[in-house]
Amino acid sequence: MKKIMNKPQDSVTQLLNGIAFAHDDCLKRIPQTGIMLSQHIEPNKVAVISGGGTGHEPAHSGYVGKNMLAASINGPIFTPPEATEIFEAIKQADQGNGVFMIVKNFEADVANFLAASALAKANGHQVAHVIVNDDCSIEKSNFKKRRRGVAGTVFVHKIVGAAAANGLDLASLTSLATEVVASMNTLGVALAPGTVPGSSVPQFSLDVSDISFGIGIHGEAGYRTEPLESSEKLANELVNKLKIHYRCYPGMKMAIMVNGLGSTPLLELYVFANDVRRLLALEEIEVSFKKVGNFMTSTNMSGVSLTFLELKEPSWLAYLKEPVLTYAW
Amino acid sequence: MKKIMNKPQDSVTQLLNGIAFAHDDCLKRIPQTGIMLSQHIEPNKVAVISGGGTGHEPAHSGYVGKNMLAASINGPIFTPPEATEIFEAIKQADQGNGVFMIVKNFEADVANFLAASALAKANGHQVAHVIVNDDCSIEKSNFKKRRRGVAGTVFVHKIVGAAAANGLDLASLTSLATEVVASMNTLGVALAPGTVPGSSVPQFSLDVSDISFGIGIHGEAGYRTEPLESSEKLANELVNKLKIHYRCYPGMKMAIMVNGLGSTPLLELYVFANDVRRLLALEEIEVSFKKVGNFMTSTNMSGVSLTFLELKEPSWLAYLKEPVLTYAW
Repeated sequence: MKKIMNKPQDSVTQLLNGIAFAHDDCLKRIPQTGIMLSQHIEPNKVAVISGGGTGHEPAHSGYVGKNMLAASINGPIFTPPEATEIFEAIKQADQGNGVFMIVKNFEADVANFLAASALAKANGHQVAHVIVNDDCSIEKSNFKKRRRGVAGTVFVHKIVGAAAANGLDLASLTSLATEVVASMNTLGVALAPGTVPGSSVPQFSLDVSDISFGIGIHGEAGYRTEPLESSEKLANELVNKLKIHYRCYPGMKMAIMVNGLGSTPLLELYVFANDVRRLLALEEIEVSFKKVGNFMTSTNMSGVSLTFLELKEPSWLAYLKEPVLTYAW
Repeated sequence: MKKIMNKPQDSVTQLLNGIAFAHDDCLKRIPQTGIMLSQHIEPNKVAVISGGGTGHEPAHSGYVGKNMLAASINGPIFTPPEATEIFEAIKQADQGNGVFMIVKNFEADVANFLAASALAKANGHQVAHVIVNDDCSIEKSNFKKRRRGVAGTVFVHKIVGAAAANGLDLASLTSLATEVVASMNTLGVALAPGTVPGSSVPQFSLDVSDISFGIGIHGEAGYRTEPLESSEKLANELVNKLKIHYRCYPGMKMAIMVNGLGSTPLLELYVFANDVRRLLALEEIEVSFKKVGNFMTSTNMSGVSLTFLELKEPSWLAYLKEPVLTYAW
């Protein structure tokens, strides 16, 4: 697998140095760590932080900056950062009003972030968190809901980041984030697996004409494979699967995200977005906010995910629209 | 070749509708045309327009909006729009202060844009243009310089768009754009060819371990293939080839763009950007401005291009930094 890299084991450090170089208007790297700290941390506000393994670029550093995240903590490829490093980020980001952590629902991520929270609390910091579990795919074997944290996490970054910038306190942010997460669902489809740096083996196998529904952002295999027929049929399948989770009605307000998984060109993402638009218009659902692009990827996986967020409060839309200075929102 | 699309012949229309849906805060589509018009055209200013074939997303629509392009005109995949459509865009964009066209140096693009200019002038519009020829690759057969218009075109959009927003007239914009183009060089490298919608054949063949230097943004083959050894060596080769075109000196101010060609993950672009950073630091060249991402792609080609722009005037940097409302800058 041809990749633009040097020694695979140096990829993360070189990635972080490249990001810090390219985006010094938004963030800075804390040397020798995976911590990216905003250049615009505001006093008297709750600091919102997030993180996880790398390999999901532009997540999470792309959302560090004015009015969004105060810091991201970036671990090895597909491996969450250590609790001690998350604790260090809490110390650096906390302005005395506490720290709010946005954590993707994967076992190791949750364990490390909660351990860091315990460490920080023991050292006098106020810390709260939300666990994002927007993935509505199922296990192939037992149909159990997976509820991993995937692309919708970026909507949580945006809404909670803007709310914190508007002065909400830790308790209010916790309540807001919990409601947003409960209103959000994502489903992803792979057209081709990714390959992590240093490996020559794709993360799963997929027939050349097939797609896989319900893949995870770490290359976890999906729950069903079938041939790719058209963007329309794919949109139909995803919209229907997501709609199950809502009581849809004419005039319902929705935010949607069409997220590329790493190597799918924008041309395809926009064709797909256009099909989603048509399907939601048929139901008279009002798409008040939309994002189309690469927001939470899985190295060079080819594919797309679709996220629905029901906008239950007008303030959520205002938070989504609030201007930011970050490199990827 | 698996692609998220419907009938290939409908791809461009569906792409444009998807873009218009997703980015109605920046632009709107003129129905039945390939014209995307800014939602923020300012009176009493020169309207800056650009365009070309589609397949280069987010170029050019991604740069339509406040303080950048007043319109983009988008033809079929890799085929420039007709002169009549460009003329229509001139009519729609012109606020009475003339229209400035940014044209990529390909024979058909230049012919169609100049024919549109002639039509517009005959109808009372003031029109001026620049032909962008930043590509410094060479023909394999005769070593002739190709000087096609590639990723650096986006720097021209940004600088000229900001200058127009600052009130520069047509003559001043022509002089500015000409100087910027003369100070800019780009070289691209493919890791794997792209495939256009509706085709099952990659645009050129490339050995699984090889890369191709000097490829074009329409899948034109490069002038040399060799194995990909490392990001460092690739950066070294490109930086050295670009440096030839400048009298480099310590303290020289440069803007650089690391541009993904369609399906290369950000992880690799940032690792490469970090290597470019190190090489320029060794020469004490001051990188005053940098962009890393996908700005001018070639469907799903895998690879990267590097652009150098010597910042000969402080105003060029100010124009690059001026805030915009577009979806891809």
